[in-house]
Amino acid sequence: MTAPAQSLPATHPQSLLFREAFRGHPAGLAVITATGPEGPIGLTASSVASVSADPPALVFSLSGRTTAPLLAAADTVLVHLMDAGQAETVRTFATPGSARFTEDMDWEFLPTGEPLLRHSTWALRCSITDRVDVGSSRVIVAAVLGIQGQATGHGPLVYHDRTYHQLSEGSSLPG
Amino acid sequence: MTAPAQSLPATHPQSLLFREAFRGHPAGLAVITATGPEGPIGLTASSVASVSADPPALVFSLSGRTTAPLLAAADTVLVHLMDAGQAETVRTFATPGSARFTEDMDWEFLPTGEPLLRHSTWALRCSITDRVDVGSSRVIVAAVLGIQGQATGHGPLVYHDRTYHQLSEGSSLPG
Repeated sequence: MTAPAQSLPATHPQSLLFREAFRGHPAGLAVITATGPEGPIGLTASSVASVSADPPALVFSLSGRTTAPLLAAADTVLVHLMDAGQAETVRTFATPGSARFTEDMDWEFLPTGEPLLRHSTWALRCSITDRVDVGSSRVIVAAVLGIQGQATGHGPLVYHDRTYHQLSEGSSLPG
Repeated sequence: MTAPAQSLPATHPQSLLFREAFRGHPAGLAVITATGPEGPIGLTASSVASVSADPPALVFSLSGRTTAPLLAAADTVLVHLMDAGQAETVRTFATPGSARFTEDMDWEFLPTGEPLLRHSTWALRCSITDRVDVGSSRVIVAAVLGIQGQATGHGPLVYHDRTYHQLSEGSSLPG
C-alpha cells in the first residue's frame, strides 16, 4: 500500500498515481469521428460508456490539442465501438500524426455528413448535448440519434496497461 | 448489417439496439461508495473513465432509483477500481438488494467519512463537481482529492456480455 488510509488526502504526486491507476483499469475501445471545418476527423477513445438506454445516451472524455477540440465542437459525431478485428484502425486513430481517412481505409461520408468506418461492429450517430470542461479536457454527453450494427465474427477488444487484449471464453471467470 | 448506412436515423427500437451495442463493449469495474443520510452506500459501475490527469478528474454514470440518487447527491465519493481478486465484492454491489457493508466485508469509515473497501486495488477519493441529468440517469464528473493504491497480485477484471473476464498475457494481441 503506498499510503495508509489516513493519508488519502494525498501526499503523493497525484497525477502520476492517477495515471498509474487508470493504466491498470481495462476499457473497451471506440473511434469517434466527425466532419470538422477542414474535413473528416477522428480519434480513438477508451472512455465511451453508456449513460441511459431510454433515451439512448452515452458519455466520453476528450483530451489533446489537435483533434479533440474539433470533435468537441461538432454538432454530431459517429461513435464506432471497435472489436478485435479492428485493432489496426484503433491503433491508427490512437497515433498522433498518423494518416487517417486514406484511400486504403474503408470509409464513406454518410448522407448526414459524418465519416463512417465501414468495418466497425457498431456505429452510433450522436448529437452532443452537454460539454463539461475539466482543465484542458472535456466530458461530452451525447444523445444517440441512430444505431447501425453488423456481425463481424471478431471477439471484443480490451485496452489495458497500454496493450490490446482479446477476450475469449477461456478468459471468463467462474460464475 | 442490420441496416444500410443510409438508414442510420434508426428505424429500429433504439433502446434495444443500444443495449445490445453496449453489452458487447468491454469495461473495467469499479465500486463507488459514499455515506448517505442513513449510512454507507455503494454500487458497482462499469462506466468509470479518466478525464484528465492534471488536474486529476474522472467521470462515471449512474442509473437506478435506490442507491444512484443518494450517491449522486453526495459531496464526496470513493471510487474503488477493482481487479479479478474482487469479483465477489463487485457482484455484491451489482446485485440489487444484496447485503452490503456487513461484518464479513472488510471495510472501514475513513476519517473523512466515506466507506473504504480495504481490498480494492485503487481507491480514489473524489469531490463531485458536475452533474448532468440524462433522462433518469446522471453523468457525474468528479475531481480527485486523494489516491490510495496497493499491489494485490490479481489481474485486471473486465465486464463483457454480462460475464466477468480476467485478462492474462495470453490474451494480448501481437503489437
